[in-house]
Order: sequence, then C-alpha cells, then structure tokens
Amino acid sequence: MVIIMKKQASSEDINHIKVKIEKLGCKVHTSEGESCIILGVVGDTSSIDTGIFEVEESVDKVMRVQSPYKRASRAFHPSDTVINLGTTSIGGNNLTVIAGPCAVENETQLLTIASAVKKSGATILRGGAFKPRTSPYSFQGLKEEGLKLLKKAKDLTGLPVVTEVMSIDQIEVTSKYVDMIQIGARNMQNFELLKAVGKTDMPVLLKRGLSATIEEFLMAAEYIMASGNEKVILCERGIRTYETYTRNTLDISAVLAVKKLSHLPIIVDPSHASGRWWMVEPLSKAAVAVGADGIAVEVHNDPANALSDGEQSIKPEKFTAMMHSLSDLAKIQNKTLKVD
Amino acid sequence: MVIIMKKQASSEDINHIKVKIEKLGCKVHTSEGESCIILGVVGDTSSIDTGIFEVEESVDKVMRVQSPYKRASRAFHPSDTVINLGTTSIGGNNLTVIAGPCAVENETQLLTIASAVKKSGATILRGGAFKPRTSPYSFQGLKEEGLKLLKKAKDLTGLPVVTEVMSIDQIEVTSKYVDMIQIGARNMQNFELLKAVGKTDMPVLLKRGLSATIEEFLMAAEYIMASGNEKVILCERGIRTYETYTRNTLDISAVLAVKKLSHLPIIVDPSHASGRWWMVEPLSKAAVAVGADGIAVEVHNDPANALSDGEQSIKPEKFTAMMHSLSDLAKIQNKTLKVD
Amino acid sequence: MVIIMKKQASSEDINHIKVKIEKLGCKVHTSEGESCIILGVVGDTSSIDTGIFEVEESVDKVMRVQSPYKRASRAFHPSDTVINLGTTSIGGNNLTVIAGPCAVENETQLLTIASAVKKSGATILRGGAFKPRTSPYSFQGLKEEGLKLLKKAKDLTGLPVVTEVMSIDQIEVTSKYVDMIQIGARNMQNFELLKAVGKTDMPVLLKRGLSATIEEFLMAAEYIMASGNEKVILCERGIRTYETYTRNTLDISAVLAVKKLSHLPIIVDPSHASGRWWMVEPLSKAAVAVGADGIAVEVHNDPANALSDGEQSIKPEKFTAMMHSLSDLAKIQNKTLKVD
Amino acid sequence: MVIIMKKQASSEDINHIKVKIEKLGCKVHTSEGESCIILGVVGDTSSIDTGIFEVEESVDKVMRVQSPYKRASRAFHPSDTVINLGTTSIGGNNLTVIAGPCAVENETQLLTIASAVKKSGATILRGGAFKPRTSPYSFQGLKEEGLKLLKKAKDLTGLPVVTEVMSIDQIEVTSKYVDMIQIGARNMQNFELLKAVGKTDMPVLLKRGLSATIEEFLMAAEYIMASGNEKVILCERGIRTYETYTRNTLDISAVLAVKKLSHLPIIVDPSHASGRWWMVEPLSKAAVAVGADGIAVEVHNDPANALSDGEQSIKPEKFTAMMHSLSDLAKIQNKTLKVD
Repeated sequence: MVIIMKKQASSEDINHIKVKIEKLGCKVHTSEGESCIILGVVGDTSSIDTGIFEVEESVDKVMRVQSPYKRASRAFHPSDTVINLGTTSIGGNNLTVIAGPCAVENETQLLTIASAVKKSGATILRGGAFKPRTSPYSFQGLKEEGLKLLKKAKDLTGLPVVTEVMSIDQIEVTSKYVDMIQIGARNMQNFELLKAVGKTDMPVLLKRGLSATIEEFLMAAEYIMASGNEKVILCERGIRTYETYTRNTLDISAVLAVKKLSHLPIIVDPSHASGRWWMVEPLSKAAVAVGADGIAVEVHNDPANALSDGEQSIKPEKFTAMMHSLSDLAKIQNKTLKVD
Repeated sequence: MVIIMKKQASSEDINHIKVKIEKLGCKVHTSEGESCIILGVVGDTSSIDTGIFEVEESVDKVMRVQSPYKRASRAFHPSDTVINLGTTSIGGNNLTVIAGPCAVENETQLLTIASAVKKSGATILRGGAFKPRTSPYSFQGLKEEGLKLLKKAKDLTGLPVVTEVMSIDQIEVTSKYVDMIQIGARNMQNFELLKAVGKTDMPVLLKRGLSATIEEFLMAAEYIMASGNEKVILCERGIRTYETYTRNTLDISAVLAVKKLSHLPIIVDPSHASGRWWMVEPLSKAAVAVGADGIAVEVHNDPANALSDGEQSIKPEKFTAMMHSLSDLAKIQNKTLKVD
Repeated sequence: MVIIMKKQASSEDINHIKVKIEKLGCKVHTSEGESCIILGVVGDTSSIDTGIFEVEESVDKVMRVQSPYKRASRAFHPSDTVINLGTTSIGGNNLTVIAGPCAVENETQLLTIASAVKKSGATILRGGAFKPRTSPYSFQGLKEEGLKLLKKAKDLTGLPVVTEVMSIDQIEVTSKYVDMIQIGARNMQNFELLKAVGKTDMPVLLKRGLSATIEEFLMAAEYIMASGNEKVILCERGIRTYETYTRNTLDISAVLAVKKLSHLPIIVDPSHASGRWWMVEPLSKAAVAVGADGIAVEVHNDPANALSDGEQSIKPEKFTAMMHSLSDLAKIQNKTLKVD
Repeated sequence: MVIIMKKQASSEDINHIKVKIEKLGCKVHTSEGESCIILGVVGDTSSIDTGIFEVEESVDKVMRVQSPYKRASRAFHPSDTVINLGTTSIGGNNLTVIAGPCAVENETQLLTIASAVKKSGATILRGGAFKPRTSPYSFQGLKEEGLKLLKKAKDLTGLPVVTEVMSIDQIEVTSKYVDMIQIGARNMQNFELLKAVGKTDMPVLLKRGLSATIEEFLMAAEYIMASGNEKVILCERGIRTYETYTRNTLDISAVLAVKKLSHLPIIVDPSHASGRWWMVEPLSKAAVAVGADGIAVEVHNDPANALSDGEQSIKPEKFTAMMHSLSDLAKIQNKTLKVD
C-alpha cells in the first residue's frame, strides 16, 4: 500500500499516519520530495481498508499494491486449479462445454435437449429450476420439480448437472439433485449467499456481475473460498456498457486477466454475453482461441416457444455443428474435447 | 409493442407472428412499406417477454411501447405517493433527511450520532447492523446486537430507524427493532429478497443497483409491490461509469426520470454516490434543487476511526451547517424541513 | 510517481529502473517489503509517460502521484481564474448564463431568440454556424453566413457571442465575428485544433468529451494553455453511460472535482446532458446549487421546427421563468445574476 | 420509423404529426390501442432526424426502424467489399496483418521493424508520423520527416503503408508518401476531417471512437462514403468501460455486428484494446476465430525505449511466433495468410 501525503502535511500528521500503520502490524518507508511525501507500507495489507487512511485530512491519496484477495490469487497458489466433477474435470487441459436450456420447462423438453447435447459432446448439462427474471410477471421456474427433472436427465445421460440457486434456503434441496451450484450475475455480490455456498463442498460456478470489476469478481470468489470451499469456477458472461446492440459486452480480455491474477478456471458464456443466437458459435470460438477453460451455452429444441431466453438459444443441430468447429480449434489449443 | 418484420418476410411468416400475438390476447395492425413491415401490437403487453418474437427468423426487431411495470407506474397511479413513517412522512412536500453512521459500531458511537443528527433536524436515523462488504475480511456488522442499539437510539431520540437486510432470514428479526427496511444496491435484483420484503408491511428503501437502468430500478420496485407491499421509497446512489475520480457517478437526472415515470418518492444518497465527504453538502443541495424528496447521508463522530466508509462520512458539526443551507433551499423549493 | 517492482525482481533490475529514473532528472527512494519493493519517484514527473516503466518485465505497476497537467492545476495557481468577455465576466462570483439556439437558421429566428434571452438576463449568446452532426445528411449549418448573423445579433443586443469551430481553417473567419470559440465534445481530443485555438487570444469554451475522464478533460485544457492561451472555460455536458433514458448522464460531481483540481471556471450544459427540454430547468438549478460558474442552455422560439436539437430546446417564455428561479437560488449561493 | 403518440393525444394532434410525416415524402399507418396510438412511418426515413417528432408534446417516443446509413449498409450492398491495396487486398478471404511501431522514431528503428514484420508475413506496414498524445508534453511525431521514412520502408520491403492524419492540412502531404490513411479513435467524429478524406481516393482505415456505438461507427463511415470515397476499412480497437485492468475493453462482438449490418471489412487492434503486450497474441487469435478480416498490432524492436506505447508493443520474435499460431488458425477459418 502506498499513501501519498498532501504537500502541506506537517511532520506531526505524518507521524500520526505512521502510528496508525504500525498498529496494523505493517512497516513504513518514507520518500520525501518537494511536492509530496510518499509512504510505502510493507507487510500484509491485503485485509486493510484503504478508507481508514483516505479519511485523514493530511492524506492526498491511497493506492493498493497487494491484491485484496489471497486464496483466489495466483501469487499464493501458482499452479492452475483443476476441479473434478463426476465424469469430467474443469481446468487444466480440459475444454469444458456446459450446455442445456435456460429454464427446465418439462420432462420432454429437458430430456430431448440433454440427450442431444450429450451426443454432440457436451461435458456438463445446465438448466434453470429457480429463475431470476427482471419482471415479477415472467415464468419463475419449476423449482423442486425442475430439480427432479435435472436428476432424471443426469441419470439418463450420465452428464453432471449445474443449476442456479438464488437464495440460501434453496441450497439444501438443490444439493440433493445436482453436482454444481451456479451463482448468477445478479447475485455475485449477494454476500450472505456466497458465504452459504462457501460452507458446502459443492463446486460453485460463479458468474461475473453485470458491472463487476475483475478485482470484485475475484473478491466474490474469495468470499466463497474464505468460508471453506475452494472449488470455484469463474464465468465471464458479458458486462454492461453503453453499447446496446448486444445484450451485454463480452469482455474477452477478462479471461486473460483472470488467468494472470488467479489460479481458478474460467469459462465464457456467449449466450448471455451477446443475447443473440447467431453470435454464439463465433464467440465460442473466440473464447477457446483466447484460452478459456470452456464455454456455457444455451441450447433449446424449440427456441421460438422457449419460456425464457429463446432469442439467445441455439438449436441442437446448430450445437452439433459448433462442436465440430470447436473440436478443430481445441486441437490447435492443445485442449481435450471429445466430439463423435 | 412494435414488431418490425424483415424485408424478405413472407405473408406466411407475418401470419405466424399475428397468430402468436392474438394468442396472447392482443390485437395487431400492419403498416406495409417498401423496405419493411411494421406490426403494431395493441392491448396489455406489459407482461409479454419481447424475446418470444425476437427469436423468430422473420423478425428484424421488437420494440416495447408500454412500460413493463404497472403498480410502480405513474400511468396507473397519477398522484404522488406519500408514505407515513412514525413521526414523519416521505414524499409530497416533505423533505426527508436520513442520517447516521454507515455501521453501528457500539452504543456510545450510535447514541452520540443519533442525538446530534436529531438535534440538527434529521427526520430518520440510519445505521447498518448487517454490512455488505466487498472483502470477507472486513467488519461485517454487529447483527442483532446492532439492531438492539438502533432500537435504543430510536427510544432516545424518537426518530424512526432504517437499516439494511441482506438475506431473507434477517427480515424477521430486523422488523422487531426498526421502522423501515433497506435493500442495498448489490441486492437490487436479488429477486427472492424483493419478494420476501414484499410480503411484509414495512416501508422499503430500495437503492438503485450499480448498473441498473431506470427501467430495471422500477421493475425491482414492481417486484416488491406485486408481492403486496406498496410502500416503496427509491434511492439514487450513483451508478458505475468509466469515471473513477468519484466512487460512483451520481445520476441526478434519474430523479427527474423517476418522477416522470413513477409515483413513488425518490431520495438521493450523495455519500455513496461520491465516496468523498467534501462532496456531500454540495451534492445534497443539488438533490434538493432538482426536486428529490430527500437525502440519505452518512454522519460519523470520528470518521478517521470508523469501521466502514469513514472517507465519505461527515462530522455532526458539518451536518448541522449543511442542514442550515438545505433549510434555505427547501423554502425556495416549497418543501418542509424543520431546522432549529 | 510510484513504481511497484515484481516480487522476483533482482537487485540488477531495480538498479536498471533507478538509472532510468535518474536520467529523467528525478530521485528515487526504495521501500522494501517481503512481497514487493516500492520505488517512490520524487521530482517533476508531470511530463513523464508511465508506459516507459510499465514496459519493463521487472515492474508490476506504475502509479502517478502528481497530476500530468500544470497550467490547468490549482496546485500551480491556487486562486480562481476569472475571464473577461466584453460586458461580462466568467468565474468568481458571476453566474454566467449562455443561451441561444442550437443552430443559427435565419435572421428572424436568431434575432428573435437573441432579444428574448437578453431581456430575460442571459449574459452570453450562443448559436451554431458550423454544426457537427452524426449524419452527413443532416443540416450542417449556415457557415460564414451564420457568423454574420451572430454579429448582427451581438450588435443588436450587446451580448458577447460564442460559437463552435470544428476545424483549424474555421478559426480565422470565426474570430472576426464572435467573442468566444467553442470546442465541441467530439473534438475535445482533436489535438491539432486545441493547439490552433491555443495560439489565438480568444476565450475558449471547452466541452468535455463524451467519454473523457476528468483528467483527460483537464489535459485538453492544458493543450490550449501550453500553446499560450490561458483563457479556458470548461463545460460539463454529460457523459456516455449505459443509461439511455437521457441522451447522456450529467456528471454533476465533475463540477466539484474540477473546482478542486483546477482554477478554471466550469459551467454546465443541461440541454445536451439530458436531451430533454423538460429537464433543463431542474438540472440548471442543480448546477447552480452544486456551485457551477454558470449554465449553457438551448433556447428556440419554435422547437418543433428547429433544424437541430429541438427536443432539448426550451421556449423563451420557459427560459424567462427559469431565470427567475435561478435568480432566487443565486442569492443563496452568493452569486451575481441580474434578472429584471 | 415508428412514432408512439401519448394516450391523451387528440385527433388534431395525430393529424398534425401525419401532415409533418407526409411533407417529408413518407406515408403513415395508424394502429390504435387503448393505451396508445402507434404511427408506422414507411418510405425513406434514413435521413430524417427523430428529434423533429420527439419535440412534439403529443408524442411519447420515436423509434427508428431503418438504419440512418445507406452506403455503408449491407441492405443496400449485400456482398462483402474487398479493397485492393498495392500487393494485397483487405476483406473477402484475405487475412490482413498490419504491423509496425506506434511512432516512427528514426530510420534504423523503422527499417529494422519493417524488415522483420515483412519477413514474418505482415501484409501492411504501420507507423505514426503525426501522433495524437493525451499530453502536450509527450513526443508528437516526426511529421513529414516520418512520412519520408515510411516511404523508404515501403521501398525496402514492398509493403503498402498506413499512417494516421489528425487534421485536414496533413492529408495532402501524407498522400504523397503512403497508401492508406488512418483516422484515429479520437477523430472518429471529427466530421470535417471525415469529409476531407472522403474527397480523396485513398483507402481509409477508420478506427472506432472510444465511446462510439456501432451505429455511430457506421455513420462515420457513411460520412466518408457520402463524400465520394467508398474505400473504408473499419477497425475495432476497444471501447471505454468501467473496467480499468485493460486500457480499453475489446468489443469482440462488434466484429459480428458490423459484418451483419455492413459490407465493409473490419479488423481488430488488440494492442490499443488491451494496452498490454502479453494480451496481444491471444486477442489476435480471438479476432481471427470470431471472423475478423485481420488485425493491426504494434511491433517494436526495443519496447522499453519506445517513444510511445512501449507497454503494448510486442518484439519482432514474439510477432513471428504469433504469426505461426495465426497461420494454423487461418486454415481452419478458410482465410489466406502466407507465413514462411
């Protein structure tokens, strides 16, 4: 941490700040110039709130050097994390393909889609039972009924299953039926929910918030990890910007930033990022080319009658074609993806 | 709702869309031009998901005309809503001043600040017992212990009290001690929490999400109202933009937009919007001048040792001076604010 | 400037950086911690490009302490700058009101509006002769013909006149007719144009770019000042964000930030910020309440037939009413504004 | 164009709007519902300013159906445009690789880099002679001296050359030495400059503005084309968002949007998009995978001593390795890229 004192700070002011630093168990070095005095704070500053210095009248600004997260940081865990999930693994050389409908609608719909994506090489099945919807008047999901159908689809195809939970009381019932829990973008900073999934031992797929910085994204992972659960998979799903042609703006560079800063696997969701089904294949290719550990895509057998997100879902036959393209790309990238 | 068909859409395609519209209980009028066909959909389209048309290959784009919210809309409720809260009211000609510390830290701190803000004319006391913090290593609040202190401060000063809840299980205990529940910016789209506070009869102070559009903000209010609770007060607290000099960017125009679109009261939080204590007074004045129903500000007797948000808190003496400025302004604006 | 070395940087690496710093005429102090080494660079770093250190493999990050601007900085010029403009002055205790049509359309239109705004207390007349339009098919302005009409309006009303230039070759002809040159938001980083107006001795009204940070805004002012012209007036006119209800998002806090960082006057343009005529009056009041040195508003006698920006122009009678509100507010703010 | 009338609009109001529409040579169809009246405007609305309807009190909102650009639109020119440039072509099956230093610094630097990138398969040489810099105190380019060196590099390598112009008076001298003119991001809406390059017959590389929407980007191309020059190549170079880890946020989806809406070629600049040299290779691969027509990258033989943008420049040996990766990818994408 670096603290810049104001030009007019007295030696008393400086001393006051130094005492405050030392009380926190850190040491301080001073660089005095003509126009400012720089205090270099060394020691473990990761859990110090910069605000306690910013509030002082004699301080000009405070800049963090060390990242505020530890367990999620590559500095503390240099090698890539690989997370096992039933028949598959996420991270390392594996190319993960999560596919399935936005929402579980009924048995026929889910089993049809599940069989199709399994056949084309998907490694994990997705499907929403609890649905976060902008409008209270939209379809809110089948709830436990949907979870049971996901279990049925898992038994039929052998694919591990991921589904979203939206509140603490949904965790217990959900964990009876599925293999991985998803925290949605709108709940990325629902800290009570993060702590609660952190107390389970289920892998957690954590989606980036609509306006979360990369640092906040990793801090959300840190919340889960600090509660005891190290099995976190990150998902870049587009951020909110001024551009409205796409539903969100896919921040493809975030994959590289996360890989640099953290050891956790990161996948890309081109369906939510773009909101347009015809962008899903090329954006999936871009995700693999940039080095993501996988993708999560929405597949629906009848998008025009889907109860949610039809406009960004691709049909099973389109999914099959895409998997063949990705397979060629995976070879160049030295990633493992089995497509028949 | 307006649906623009692609140039090459066949009459069969158009008919297919028309049938889909009519099944939803709406009517359709067609405008045929050389380069496109426009379908004007009339009837109650507020709860129709535009995605079900966007997904169709023959459709170019879909534009919503009617707002997707009803209970929160001024169209359905033309006059301003005024919400009673113990000794005070929010909305109408009242200028609401919510003041208090970011977090409840201990009895002396809270009672000192509560007495001071009461004396200077604040109408509602604020203080956090459950604290949403970016880092899992930061102070997380005193929880029920903090709620008890808030009740004590209320008994001492007579001021109604507002505090934040972060999860469903905190609602019951919180409602025993305070008068109004706050939903924080990071939970603005925590839909399960919105539904849960919607089932209580307590007034709800709903803060705008960091990257929420005005429409999404009103939809979040709609969630609460659709669950049965009409007592919603909105709070503009700055949005996330590319500018980093301030913690967030105060969207002062949003006050005007909300007043146009909705009948609900809206206040402004300059402390979180700016993240800088020296901006709080002038931004509060701007909020009153633009026509907001009030402000919410953080006040601390010892900001340099505050456990949270010290850098954006003002001291009681600064608060007193600000209240005098606001009082002059309130007169010009025909708002009621009593300052001794 | 502060340079953070990577954990694994060798003493040779550190020495290499130190030599590079000293060659630039600065001195360096080292703070060595367990997880990083901090180099505090002292001396005049305002014109050093941080990139020359960021490029080094041994460097983790570089943070600027000193602002990269000098002439525009309050640190180098503590008291407020006041700029004289014919019969009026901008800055200090003066409340500047720039009013007039978006575009000069014809003699009757301009003289009608000019007389009306003069009568209601405007201090400067605005009107576009060269118009920056998003579409090449929109009205592009009357050019020199428009400048002549502006001169006529000036002669009639006695008001000083401001108009925009869009390229270097328009400066000479423009300066024959008007008193102040405007640089539009889209040209805020048209550096050749900034240098060219910097070589004149005319006051320059510099509008903030659509996505310019406050630092870039002040750097643009610095360009003009470094070329020899210190008479720069800044104008906050809304920034681009994800919110689309308003044309731009008025960054009202930027007024406070600029006042803190710079000695230059700053005014607010609520017409372009909101794009909605009914927001102009309340936003103007907010601007005055926050402490801006003035406002710039679009006034048109027949908005429905305006050739440009009719939707954000107010009628002369609305302008008169607004001036009365502002007059009351000016008194509280200790600003001078004469309204009959 | 669709015009939504307010609920309370009278038949007189509607008639007034209809007359206004018909005067512009368009026809109108009316859809009357209980809560609103929709006017569908058919005919050529591409050059109509929506503001002239938005300004009317009886109008609720106006939505554009037809794009406001024509020459740049795929609707008016369905097949992909291919632009010839000396020994190479841009668009179609060609994968364009523009490489070279940010700024031309001296003969040795430029010729060293030019030979290196030519050897590794670059198809066009870049290098700045006129440099847009945020600070007036930074290196501003060698100007005509730099242009002469670019011509020398062209003669040596046979590569066509692109360089940026920042003002109208630089166009003539520049066109004597180079093959393609670049309009930088900060000048994307410098309309006078767009018109001026539109009057030449040189290919123009138009970079997207920092906060330009895709529609504004295509409108800027339209400005050039409307002035007579159809040879426009678009370049996505990152947009400004709230995320600060990267210099800008690469909007990779914009490539797909532009390909859908326009027939013009589009390339990607990963150097400016990320501002980090170690992101250049993976982002280049993502650009090719998503379907871009090429890339533009900064290459420098000594980034640590570069006069500009060293931190985002890659060394020639890194460039060579990248070209081999891209070559493998090009094969899968059915694009032509010759690498020895």
